[in-house]
Amino acid sequence: MTSYLQGVGVSPAAAAPALGKMKVVDRRVRVSELILRSVICGLALVAALLVATDTQVQEIFTIQKKAKYTDMKSLVFFVVANGIAAAYSLIQILRCIVSMVRGSVLFNKPLAWLIFSGDQLMAYMIVAAIGGAAQSAAFAKLGEPELQWMKVCNMYGKFCNQVGEGIASSVFVCGSMIAVSGISAFSLFRLYGGNKGSKTSAGW
Amino acid sequence: MTSYLQGVGVSPAAAAPALGKMKVVDRRVRVSELILRSVICGLALVAALLVATDTQVQEIFTIQKKAKYTDMKSLVFFVVANGIAAAYSLIQILRCIVSMVRGSVLFNKPLAWLIFSGDQLMAYMIVAAIGGAAQSAAFAKLGEPELQWMKVCNMYGKFCNQVGEGIASSVFVCGSMIAVSGISAFSLFRLYGGNKGSKTSAGW
Repeated sequence: MTSYLQGVGVSPAAAAPALGKMKVVDRRVRVSELILRSVICGLALVAALLVATDTQVQEIFTIQKKAKYTDMKSLVFFVVANGIAAAYSLIQILRCIVSMVRGSVLFNKPLAWLIFSGDQLMAYMIVAAIGGAAQSAAFAKLGEPELQWMKVCNMYGKFCNQVGEGIASSVFVCGSMIAVSGISAFSLFRLYGGNKGSKTSAGW
Repeated sequence: MTSYLQGVGVSPAAAAPALGKMKVVDRRVRVSELILRSVICGLALVAALLVATDTQVQEIFTIQKKAKYTDMKSLVFFVVANGIAAAYSLIQILRCIVSMVRGSVLFNKPLAWLIFSGDQLMAYMIVAAIGGAAQSAAFAKLGEPELQWMKVCNMYGKFCNQVGEGIASSVFVCGSMIAVSGISAFSLFRLYGGNKGSKTSAGW
């Protein structure tokens, strides 16, 4: 954008088509970002709710046992991580909309760094949450005969299935989050891309 | 950076020190990358070996039971993930050295995309592996009373401690990998910041 200003200064006619192209790319990036963030917000909420509302009561010789997500630390982390991702995405969606309405492009380095760091943090947090929850689910589903850990999913089938759906939903969140963190990396580091042009200029 | 570009355009003599400054940044980035990749390679190997060579034999009423990492799927994944990260980093170290000896800077977009994708993949893989292994370790250490999963670390104390060391080593691998994937994102996306420079050229 700075350069375009320079371009305008020297010859406005030459700058016009390049400017149009630039704006198309920017618009596409922003629209993809908005779509991805909406997907994240929705699916992360679904994942958190699926797991958090999941309960099953089993009766074993007149003793009632109730399975819920707080029985497993990894599921608590999973719910919290997805909840945070949903809340974070909601804030980012508002930011996207504001910047789209204003028509401004992100050229503020501290803000770009903040968004980049936030997205990275969220992406790694979700991956870790899925890793832990998937591991717990595998133990619950398959048991671990060597350690005499039993297959609790045989007892709580409906509970396990719903947790599985939650994890599946979160896998989509994870994919979108990785894509979004790629976009925010692009938005940040392109601001540092001056040197390529400088070499061309120096060569002349 | 942009302002310095303008400087180049106006007077070539003024460009020399600025260009030198650019090279300093490049050199620093490359040296940090090399150091981080060496750290990853070494610590990932340590983590994989610590877990893979870990065994403990317990005698329970004349029956010998041997604990090893293949008893738990998540530890197998952990060893494989760290092994892959070590091998990948070795290849990347060679590439770094070759490009340093040649003195070339990365301006090849497909190669930059390849490195960026590889680094991202490695970082998320390591985070997932740590997530799974940490979850298993937590179960083994603390048990899960609600599910009647027993604390196997009470029986295999030495085994568990060594696994813990492996995970700790891998946490450093993870941190370095995230930093490296930041560097490769920087190296890739700065190539897309060129419209600044190119437009200046067009303006001439």
